[in-house]
Amino acid sequence: MIVFREKKEAHAWVLQQRKAGKTIGLVPTMGALHAGHHSLVTHSQQECDATIATIFVNPTQFGPGEDLAKYPQTLEADLEGLRNLGTDAVFVPASPTAMYLPDHSTYVTPPIVASSWEGVVRPHHFRGVATIVLKLFHLLPATTAFFGQKDYQQSAVIRAMVEEFDLDIEIRVCPIVRDPDGLAMSSRNRYLTAPERSCALAIPRALQQAAEAFFAGERRAVVLESKMYEELARGPVDGVDYAVIADAQTLQRQIVIERPAVALIAARVGSTRLIDNHLLSPKNRD
Amino acid sequence: MIVFREKKEAHAWVLQQRKAGKTIGLVPTMGALHAGHHSLVTHSQQECDATIATIFVNPTQFGPGEDLAKYPQTLEADLEGLRNLGTDAVFVPASPTAMYLPDHSTYVTPPIVASSWEGVVRPHHFRGVATIVLKLFHLLPATTAFFGQKDYQQSAVIRAMVEEFDLDIEIRVCPIVRDPDGLAMSSRNRYLTAPERSCALAIPRALQQAAEAFFAGERRAVVLESKMYEELARGPVDGVDYAVIADAQTLQRQIVIERPAVALIAARVGSTRLIDNHLLSPKNRD
Repeated sequence: MIVFREKKEAHAWVLQQRKAGKTIGLVPTMGALHAGHHSLVTHSQQECDATIATIFVNPTQFGPGEDLAKYPQTLEADLEGLRNLGTDAVFVPASPTAMYLPDHSTYVTPPIVASSWEGVVRPHHFRGVATIVLKLFHLLPATTAFFGQKDYQQSAVIRAMVEEFDLDIEIRVCPIVRDPDGLAMSSRNRYLTAPERSCALAIPRALQQAAEAFFAGERRAVVLESKMYEELARGPVDGVDYAVIADAQTLQRQIVIERPAVALIAARVGSTRLIDNHLLSPKNRD
Repeated sequence: MIVFREKKEAHAWVLQQRKAGKTIGLVPTMGALHAGHHSLVTHSQQECDATIATIFVNPTQFGPGEDLAKYPQTLEADLEGLRNLGTDAVFVPASPTAMYLPDHSTYVTPPIVASSWEGVVRPHHFRGVATIVLKLFHLLPATTAFFGQKDYQQSAVIRAMVEEFDLDIEIRVCPIVRDPDGLAMSSRNRYLTAPERSCALAIPRALQQAAEAFFAGERRAVVLESKMYEELARGPVDGVDYAVIADAQTLQRQIVIERPAVALIAARVGSTRLIDNHLLSPKNRD
């Protein structure tokens, strides 16, 4: 596995692969890799001739008071994991200033789908996400990029940006990977104490109950949302930023579910903020 | 000359040329082509193996009350001119909605260099410029793109965006082309009546006088600016949006000129708004 620390070299490698007629899968990450990230690499390997991952804790997607400073950094273990999977290359920018000059001022104003839910709680989050993803798409011009469904709204933002900016890259959104207890894998799970983790399990349970009611025929969003709030209170979680039924594409809130929808939750447990979701469309029964 | 009306076909053509190992020059225009645009094509032909021009009046770079509705459209003459020059291809989007879906919402927040001068008078102008240029860079992934120095701040915005978004494209800024009377060529010159044009000539004269004083050794910006305002008043022009000496790179106003600078003017003559500029660095004596 080739580890690139310099933009130029990573860029040249991708161009070289493309010139040789290979398809390239890109797996952008912020490190602290878990089985969810690994599944993105595996999906990429199944679909593409070569796979490049990136590891970069992107400062512009963190707001003031968020966990940028304490975000887990496990570079050696991350590289070991990617190597074991047979990843072809990984790009690890040498420093934050390798990606953003001190006077950086050009950003993506993200699509409208960024303005609800996470966009309300974390006002500049998707501006930072869209900007770093666009930069990585330019630096590492892959044929396909792989993102996790766990960050559901993020994938909707990226899809819309790709469409509206005429980017020539396929976006694949891969299924959520869960621990055996049901908690969606997240780099932030390691912040949880054992009792906190037990409370956090209310999140996947709440989603599961909403899904069960939906598949049993309930179409009134408010009924499903009430079930989610009740389960979250039972956890108990320490705060709910939102627990809603939204249109699967626009993320606008649904009143009566008539199109593919998604149940979205963001909740706080101790000082940790967790997000999770569950698709509510006939083919996603699970 | 191939004329593309569809994004997909224009995109495929550029990829095909690049695959064949050719360098591609991109000349983005809003049509109403004049000798200034033609010179961009000629520069591209000198430097690149193939040249593609675009003709699209980009609605997102016009503000309310600006001249979008009356912007000159001379498509047949434009195509004839490009054909005569031996341009390889031209992309003419079939309609504004071919470039922007009705619910388009993803934009470029342009770099800080967009916030002064034109950015003050035309608040969303550079957001629109940066967005359409980025889209065209994605659709038509050229090796080099050609812009005119007449839109000086625009070229600074694009250069900064390319740098900060890690775009792999060379930006060439080609010299201003002037009519024999000194007026910088512009599609908007055709709005001018004969008496208005005579008044408008105060703009290049003002720049010329500032340049002469600079090359004679004057380094106080305020002295050069006063000369410009006096000459503009003598025209007379009907209003001056700005007439300043700015840093050639950051476009920040200079007090004493110690680095390469540029004299920038935006003035109104009748209902027509004109911009022009002159570089003030030792090598640009003309």
